[in-house]
Amino acid sequence: MKYLTEYLWFNTPKRRDIINITETIQGLVKKSGVAEGFCLVSAMHITASIWVNDDEEGLWQDFWELLERLAPSTKDYKHHLTGEDNGDAHLKRTLIGHQATLPITKGKLDRGPWEQIFYAEFDGKRKKRVVVKILGD
Amino acid sequence: MKYLTEYLWFNTPKRRDIINITETIQGLVKKSGVAEGFCLVSAMHITASIWVNDDEEGLWQDFWELLERLAPSTKDYKHHLTGEDNGDAHLKRTLIGHQATLPITKGKLDRGPWEQIFYAEFDGKRKKRVVVKILGD
Amino acid sequence: MKYLTEYLWFNTPKRRDIINITETIQGLVKKSGVAEGFCLVSAMHITASIWVNDDEEGLWQDFWELLERLAPSTKDYKHHLTGEDNGDAHLKRTLIGHQATLPITKGKLDRGPWEQIFYAEFDGKRKKRVVVKILGD
Repeated sequence: MKYLTEYLWFNTPKRRDIINITETIQGLVKKSGVAEGFCLVSAMHITASIWVNDDEEGLWQDFWELLERLAPSTKDYKHHLTGEDNGDAHLKRTLIGHQATLPITKGKLDRGPWEQIFYAEFDGKRKKRVVVKILGD
Repeated sequence: MKYLTEYLWFNTPKRRDIINITETIQGLVKKSGVAEGFCLVSAMHITASIWVNDDEEGLWQDFWELLERLAPSTKDYKHHLTGEDNGDAHLKRTLIGHQATLPITKGKLDRGPWEQIFYAEFDGKRKKRVVVKILGD
Repeated sequence: MKYLTEYLWFNTPKRRDIINITETIQGLVKKSGVAEGFCLVSAMHITASIWVNDDEEGLWQDFWELLERLAPSTKDYKHHLTGEDNGDAHLKRTLIGHQATLPITKGKLDRGPWEQIFYAEFDGKRKKRVVVKILGD
């Protein structure tokens, strides 16, 4: 069995952002030497997500509109009694999900025609990490 | 290590549909010869989901009502500026999640008593794929 | 390849509850002897979730407020025509997601600084199970 563990670091200038990491992940799959296996991509900070969807800016706006409607950043969250101001970011991560597992087939990510892998940041402007764990033969 | 990669094709007559794929997945687990491992089931098109829940038609209606309420099909999405009309389907996939990992124990899907695996289609009437990747011993 | 399959049982006195299972899962990783691999934690009952987020009570209240707003327990669900009264719990599980895969690195859960693993119960007061499947080298 082969495996590879890598950490991707992000420090977005904007508080909320979407970053396409598909090529980076594909590069790690190549580096791992795994031909058949799984690649787990998981946001290690609890105010960020991994999102597998379309590389289309209009859709990204719809994504933000949905999230802001369901978990508004302007709301007075109980979490803020701790001194934090990112309650919405915790809930946005919860709704989107914080990880994805990609199958690896014949040495490549086995993605659908439009599937792109994104890091979604809900509380940026600071260093945050994503773990990539690849396992297989 | 053993592995199996298979693709399931769907072409639903209705635009939105729920299809129980539990028996199909169980059949692939048997075919793989894997006794202990993981079975990843992942929708490769970005307007479809995998949903693990109850095989009960009333609940399916509640599922659709929830999704239509949170991401209405009648809304004017920014994604539609590209000529598409399926913005809601992208967001519905996002809320439900596009994949599930099933444990395999003693050669069988290790499911709860009521857990059924569904393909949820949010923009059908065309050929779409699900990848099933099984890995283990 | 090594593997371990264990089942955690819950029977919460309250109908809705959040239980931190991080230490329990870490104990199973140690027991498995797996140094590099994956640990799948999956709620086997379709009215419960696995949630990876912050161990902070204010946030838990925000979590419940969000879920009650999106899938109210007071709503008259179609699922209730079967005699059940837990339609909201099925939908809450759907929104939160029922599982998480944790990477294992050097014999330990490879978690972010604040990531805690929770069992989220939406329809308790009865015996329910979570499957933990660990696979790796």
